[in-house]
Amino acid sequence: METITVKLTKNSYPIIIGKGLFQYLKNFWPLKKGDKVMIITNKTLAPIFLEKIIFFLKKVNEKIDYIILPDGEKYKNLSTINQILTTLIQKNYGRDTTLIALGGGVIGDITGFAASIYQRGINFIQIPTTLLAQVDASIGGKTGVNHDLGKNMIGSFHQPILVIIDINFLKLLSARELSSGMAEVIKYGITFDQNFFLWIEKNINKIMKINKLTMVNLIRRCCEIKAKIVNQDETEKNSRALLNFGHTFAHAIETHIGYGKCLHGEAVAIGMIIASRIAKIMNNFCESNIVRIIKLLQLTNLPIYAPKNMQSSTYIPYIMRDKKVINEKLRLILPTSIGHAKIYSDIDHSCILNAIQNSQEL
Amino acid sequence: METITVKLTKNSYPIIIGKGLFQYLKNFWPLKKGDKVMIITNKTLAPIFLEKIIFFLKKVNEKIDYIILPDGEKYKNLSTINQILTTLIQKNYGRDTTLIALGGGVIGDITGFAASIYQRGINFIQIPTTLLAQVDASIGGKTGVNHDLGKNMIGSFHQPILVIIDINFLKLLSARELSSGMAEVIKYGITFDQNFFLWIEKNINKIMKINKLTMVNLIRRCCEIKAKIVNQDETEKNSRALLNFGHTFAHAIETHIGYGKCLHGEAVAIGMIIASRIAKIMNNFCESNIVRIIKLLQLTNLPIYAPKNMQSSTYIPYIMRDKKVINEKLRLILPTSIGHAKIYSDIDHSCILNAIQNSQEL
Repeated sequence: METITVKLTKNSYPIIIGKGLFQYLKNFWPLKKGDKVMIITNKTLAPIFLEKIIFFLKKVNEKIDYIILPDGEKYKNLSTINQILTTLIQKNYGRDTTLIALGGGVIGDITGFAASIYQRGINFIQIPTTLLAQVDASIGGKTGVNHDLGKNMIGSFHQPILVIIDINFLKLLSARELSSGMAEVIKYGITFDQNFFLWIEKNINKIMKINKLTMVNLIRRCCEIKAKIVNQDETEKNSRALLNFGHTFAHAIETHIGYGKCLHGEAVAIGMIIASRIAKIMNNFCESNIVRIIKLLQLTNLPIYAPKNMQSSTYIPYIMRDKKVINEKLRLILPTSIGHAKIYSDIDHSCILNAIQNSQEL
Repeated sequence: METITVKLTKNSYPIIIGKGLFQYLKNFWPLKKGDKVMIITNKTLAPIFLEKIIFFLKKVNEKIDYIILPDGEKYKNLSTINQILTTLIQKNYGRDTTLIALGGGVIGDITGFAASIYQRGINFIQIPTTLLAQVDASIGGKTGVNHDLGKNMIGSFHQPILVIIDINFLKLLSARELSSGMAEVIKYGITFDQNFFLWIEKNINKIMKINKLTMVNLIRRCCEIKAKIVNQDETEKNSRALLNFGHTFAHAIETHIGYGKCLHGEAVAIGMIIASRIAKIMNNFCESNIVRIIKLLQLTNLPIYAPKNMQSSTYIPYIMRDKKVINEKLRLILPTSIGHAKIYSDIDHSCILNAIQNSQEL
């Protein structure tokens, strides 16, 4: 069992990483006996984990209830939030309630956002069950839902009081979900840590086989990087934006083809390739680095081509609604070398269109 | 022109009080020339003020747009929020946007909440146009909307970057709206400042005639009290709850009879009388004080009887959903003398029912 602390001005919280963590719940559980608990999970996870988790929670808390949502990104919207808030009010849940997000990134984002606006803010705990949520989405307090016109356009910064990462959950991941999570892992390597990128290249076979020790090392390193960035810049005024490498294009793809039709990590993989190609023009990012990135994404079974049926010009309105746009000017995160990235603004649209076209399958 | 500063750990902001302030806009306007501005107002105010305000804003900002909402508490809900967010996305408003709330408490609460969740939080400015919003609602960052089952159940703490209180707006107030605002003014006197209560008693005629100098003094004192409380306890962990004197019962009445059917201050007046009667039983709050409070509320043309058609037992489910309920136990703010109040918990329901019955018109 390992602990990484996210240190913030107002409040700090621990990320606990290990396997079979629920039997040790008492050792790190922050809630008092009388506190009310509402678990938010989905239809896929509930039959497998809900009973087990409630069994362990009952040892430390008395009042436990749950809400089971349909599974999928297309339910990450204001209507689902309204449904959660209505249930909480109907059942007389007060400000002394803690929500628990048991699920992947979608459940975490929805639960955190509901917690941030219920009675002007209540506590929540993240129990991420997918690799993507464990290495990225569950840490750092970005919460929110999608709007038909843009991904994560509605939300807030609301930090959890605890993140529990149990690698036993990974056993149940589909191959596609494992790959999707790896896109965010590779992102950390490209933007922040060359050694970590090398380590991923070296250990990719063990990773794809979900070797437990390898996965603990991988998740720990991702959490360390994420925690450090969030410590420096909680509300993304500056360096935290670097974590968005590939995401401007990923959000355009996800919004255009319809939420849930591709996994987030799959869209991020394509977005990273497009951004790397723009970097080649903007700052002479080496072609050999692009080849290495594509090769690693391929070994991870991630898509490496932008969707055929989405013309390059189609991206523009979506990317101009990106949260990084200031004064009508797009800002993009581009790598300068493997392990380093920078924010670039005012990039020529023709350069972007070109990179998208070069990333489409012939 | 006077300035009171709300000092917070993360950010401080000024409250500017005066008359005809818009001609001095340049002197205190925090926005830069390129910043985008979206004014949120309602159908009643727009024809009177919108053009004038845009005229002055154009001198300091270039990009100004507006959203006009229907007027009334019944539109203070998630659906209106969704409408604002959709317009902002459709028109490509980015994180560099500042929302301006031009209106009373409803517009302020809606605008602040929309600002708090658009792209995980953008800036907003309060321009309160009613007495109630000028002395209370616009200061301190409480934002939110109603749910069918409870008032202000959905919301956040999100501080404005500036509050502009122009007493010229008060000229246009209906008599009923002026009275409604006075309920919150009297609340400050009862819970925090005996001298202020005495001053209100002495000046009630001038106040009801909206004497300009008297109103500036009145608003300044209310803002001073509110700013001090918010400085001490921004997110209502403790002393800020005292500002809720009368509000538990007010919210029950407003929710039960239908949002907008009575004004907020009217419900607060009745709530303060009920709470004062409970205080008489709980802590020997003098009958003579209750008489003084009722007399002052009467002079202010506020209702002093609880609604006839709302049985005392009807209040219970509403008050048990109050945001101050912890561990199923209701907490109420009760005066101990004129100028002082305390939080009481675990009050006998029969004592509450009794006070409600005693407050109903025979």
